[in-house]
Amino acid sequence: MEKGLLIVVSGPSGAGKGTICKELLNRNKEITLSVSATTRKPRVGEKDGVNYHFIDEKTFEKMIENDEFLEYAKVYSNYYGTPKKFVLEKLNKGEDVLLEIDIQGALNVKKIYPDGVFIFILPPSMEELKKRIEKRGTETEESLQERFGSAYKEVEYVKQYDYAVVNDEVDSAVNKVESIIIAEKARVDRQKDIINKYKEV
Amino acid sequence: MEKGLLIVVSGPSGAGKGTICKELLNRNKEITLSVSATTRKPRVGEKDGVNYHFIDEKTFEKMIENDEFLEYAKVYSNYYGTPKKFVLEKLNKGEDVLLEIDIQGALNVKKIYPDGVFIFILPPSMEELKKRIEKRGTETEESLQERFGSAYKEVEYVKQYDYAVVNDEVDSAVNKVESIIIAEKARVDRQKDIINKYKEV
Repeated sequence: MEKGLLIVVSGPSGAGKGTICKELLNRNKEITLSVSATTRKPRVGEKDGVNYHFIDEKTFEKMIENDEFLEYAKVYSNYYGTPKKFVLEKLNKGEDVLLEIDIQGALNVKKIYPDGVFIFILPPSMEELKKRIEKRGTETEESLQERFGSAYKEVEYVKQYDYAVVNDEVDSAVNKVESIIIAEKARVDRQKDIINKYKEV
Repeated sequence: MEKGLLIVVSGPSGAGKGTICKELLNRNKEITLSVSATTRKPRVGEKDGVNYHFIDEKTFEKMIENDEFLEYAKVYSNYYGTPKKFVLEKLNKGEDVLLEIDIQGALNVKKIYPDGVFIFILPPSMEELKKRIEKRGTETEESLQERFGSAYKEVEYVKQYDYAVVNDEVDSAVNKVESIIIAEKARVDRQKDIINKYKEV
């Protein structure tokens, strides 16, 4: 059996990767979302086990010690990490898994699991990105400036990804991500099984 | 401006690449079909300049001498070739060009133009492929056997392609090819221009 696809959706904060992933999951019930663990406080409306596994720093650091993360990083003084076991089990069963993570995290996953599909979500423009970050309105002024600055630098990292999708319109961006998934499954190097079929005759 | 995409659709004869390309062009009027030149006789219903440029052996060999082919090959004692000038001009203008060619030809194009997208069309099964080749009914018994034999060997070449699409149902196969085209356009290495946009701010 072929392995499932690890779909990594990443990009600067405010580019809209969350919205895209939500709609992608809505349309494709067979894709499993990997829920990250974090030590940051929940934002209004966020649910434990749905948006994140909200855990304390001590627990997180214990998990680091036990090598239980596919990737983890400290961003804005909080830990974020992807529990390894869940993701690898699903992939080995042939299920597709979606990771919605920041750039640091995605690049770490790429080192361990280069077979993943690495998709960078770009904002329509840097001006639009600034607006979106401001609109989110859950940030202090200081962390806002921090986010602007890092968003500029982060766009540079697109070069290390496989695909870049501009999020000018959610529907069309999700269509593109869906096409990328279909295309990746049609790659010859992901279809070793199907090709053997023709040799048996 | 980004270059157009060279879409190479290939596969064993009888796999249905012709039907898939026809439907792909129907749906995507902006894709230009490259018309091959050949020295073989037109089949019933085939039109000069539409299905092929039907030319004589002398003319074909003159064009070989003048290096006017992107690829050419002698298959079943007939020449087939892709006139170079037309394809490269379109690609440089940013237009997508579709090549529907046999496996030998596709692999030669890959050597000269590795930036192309190489798609191998597979039959649902070898049994089905045999049926389709027989059904075509425009072959002598001898050339039928020749085609079966070569079809078996040809499936092996799928390994040298980027994508493999099983033609079990034309609509779904064309959907896959369309997804491949969308995904390839979203590849980071094909979008150097769009990324520069964010650096200017």
